[in-house]
Amino acid sequence: MEYQHGGDIYTNQVTMDYSANINPLGLAKGVKKALLQAVENCSCYPDSRCSKLITELGAFHGFSEKQLICGNGAADLIFQIVQVIKPGRALLIAPSFLEYEQALETVSAEVVWYDLKESDGFRLSVKEITKWLKENDQEIEMLFLCNPNNPTGFALPKEEMKELLDVCSQKRIYCVIDECFNEFLDNPGSYSVLELISKGGYDHVFVLKAFTKIYAMAGVRLGYGISTGEKTIELMNRIRQPWSVSALAQAAGEAALGETEYVKETRQLISREREYLKENLNDLGFLVYDSMANYLFFKDTRKNACNVEKLLYNELLDRQVLIRSCSNYRGLDHTYYRICVKQRMENDAFLAVLKSILTKGE
Amino acid sequence: MEYQHGGDIYTNQVTMDYSANINPLGLAKGVKKALLQAVENCSCYPDSRCSKLITELGAFHGFSEKQLICGNGAADLIFQIVQVIKPGRALLIAPSFLEYEQALETVSAEVVWYDLKESDGFRLSVKEITKWLKENDQEIEMLFLCNPNNPTGFALPKEEMKELLDVCSQKRIYCVIDECFNEFLDNPGSYSVLELISKGGYDHVFVLKAFTKIYAMAGVRLGYGISTGEKTIELMNRIRQPWSVSALAQAAGEAALGETEYVKETRQLISREREYLKENLNDLGFLVYDSMANYLFFKDTRKNACNVEKLLYNELLDRQVLIRSCSNYRGLDHTYYRICVKQRMENDAFLAVLKSILTKGE
Repeated sequence: MEYQHGGDIYTNQVTMDYSANINPLGLAKGVKKALLQAVENCSCYPDSRCSKLITELGAFHGFSEKQLICGNGAADLIFQIVQVIKPGRALLIAPSFLEYEQALETVSAEVVWYDLKESDGFRLSVKEITKWLKENDQEIEMLFLCNPNNPTGFALPKEEMKELLDVCSQKRIYCVIDECFNEFLDNPGSYSVLELISKGGYDHVFVLKAFTKIYAMAGVRLGYGISTGEKTIELMNRIRQPWSVSALAQAAGEAALGETEYVKETRQLISREREYLKENLNDLGFLVYDSMANYLFFKDTRKNACNVEKLLYNELLDRQVLIRSCSNYRGLDHTYYRICVKQRMENDAFLAVLKSILTKGE
Repeated sequence: MEYQHGGDIYTNQVTMDYSANINPLGLAKGVKKALLQAVENCSCYPDSRCSKLITELGAFHGFSEKQLICGNGAADLIFQIVQVIKPGRALLIAPSFLEYEQALETVSAEVVWYDLKESDGFRLSVKEITKWLKENDQEIEMLFLCNPNNPTGFALPKEEMKELLDVCSQKRIYCVIDECFNEFLDNPGSYSVLELISKGGYDHVFVLKAFTKIYAMAGVRLGYGISTGEKTIELMNRIRQPWSVSALAQAAGEAALGETEYVKETRQLISREREYLKENLNDLGFLVYDSMANYLFFKDTRKNACNVEKLLYNELLDRQVLIRSCSNYRGLDHTYYRICVKQRMENDAFLAVLKSILTKGE
């Protein structure tokens, strides 16, 4: 099986991993403490209903317990929701997170692609996609939308999301809104649809959230989903294995919800360092797209950027630096990359390596 | 969602849990150490291929890496194998582990039941089931067999398993052999089909194994499967989410494989205490079936055993002791129970509570 995502520090010799979009602050103290304690009790089966965690998530987001489901990472829930909705045909936006397509394959769904344009900076225009949806005569039953999008980092404000969800409601399209990176935005509340769906009338919307990224718990695996369509949640519970969320993950998640200062600090750090990296990458001559998240999407515009022997990816890897090549995203080639945003010292070290490669190449 | 399995120490007030079949020795020292270390690194994504663990499992069992797959507990793999085989009709033995049926429901498979008889002590006769398979004219595409069986604890020797697998091969029935409790048997090698399938010719067999039970890692979630049908393994990898096994579970599993002394000690303990509990339950007047595993299956034969107000289950729970009621297994009622085998001091405490209930009832 080929490695298709960032974070492959297992095959590669890596001292600097810029390929995985994880909170650079690392585990919050409270989460680490909870995990270490949970190790003491991990001989028992986990609570198959995640009762405590779900109660706390409900209070945190203002939803009832029947509107919440936890999973073994957000990816687990992507596969489950597809199993429940079983669309004949689904609309995917390209480029976007690869797992949507993988999950749709498991139910043999036909994928219709909505390709973002390079000339628009790979930004999704709600005006255009809603027009397309209204005029399109293929019967689309499901839509995945990653907001902010991965790998581009562009986020749609909630007012535009509402327009899109309303059109999908008219067209009877089930919507999965992946907000796994929402917490890294400067103003998360301006982009999330949670408040909107909490008011009712959006039972066709499933919002995906993760602990993985914002709480730096990628190795622990914990994601969750929210929908006022309680029937859908119930069906997901019916088709999943009972102990999909480990006792360690449940304990970590419960502790994470108390880490509000850590999240605030993260947001400030990301905001500052994202701009810092953006400027520096720009200065180095890369074409940097307008990410609003904790990662940057850019294009290597050098003459020989596509030359396999001189790929930036390989040159960095020779120096044990791993970045995410975006060549396996639909519509992108070997000159597109994604890097995560880390702390200043790490970013400076990363930029220094990058500079040394570019200087060498002159 | 109703709690359908043992181990619900979350809804109930429990000081003594005899409902979950976990190694009573608790976490092995090496596993605990590995888990605590893994917490330090759990901000990184896990290796989506479980490369190191799979290499070590391959060496441990004598199979190649392509013949192995890891999952988020054995239950994860039950759902995956069903997704891959997608049988129209499957044969299940009753009573047996509930998740087989749940998994088959997700692909809308029709379940044909092969009911074990109380008069046979709920023992499966290979002679009878092969005869049934040969004469049966329904097209059965898949069979689940738990060996030793859960909840009965009865195990079929490998020679009889070979007969069954050979008939299934002729009838083109895909077989999942669940050996999750094999390691608790006095002579595991006499019951496992792993040696048999390693010789080739059994690509239609998938053997399920778990770390959960024998290494007391139920809260961590780690199971694996072995099949020489490499195509099936490949297909399972294709339909699963990439990070199904947490970094914590992978680290724990790698450490567990070195715990040979712990496993030996476990086996001696279980053998001794199983007989001790059996005798004592017999002496108390229960009908104890012939379990060979780390749990005992018995029937409360008292006159009012089925009286809801006097259910042994409830009387024990009033005293904060949880046992597994087997009433939600097909073919069983409220008078059938399963308890796990623990250490002597715990077993004596458990028996004392049991005695106090029976004495009170006289």
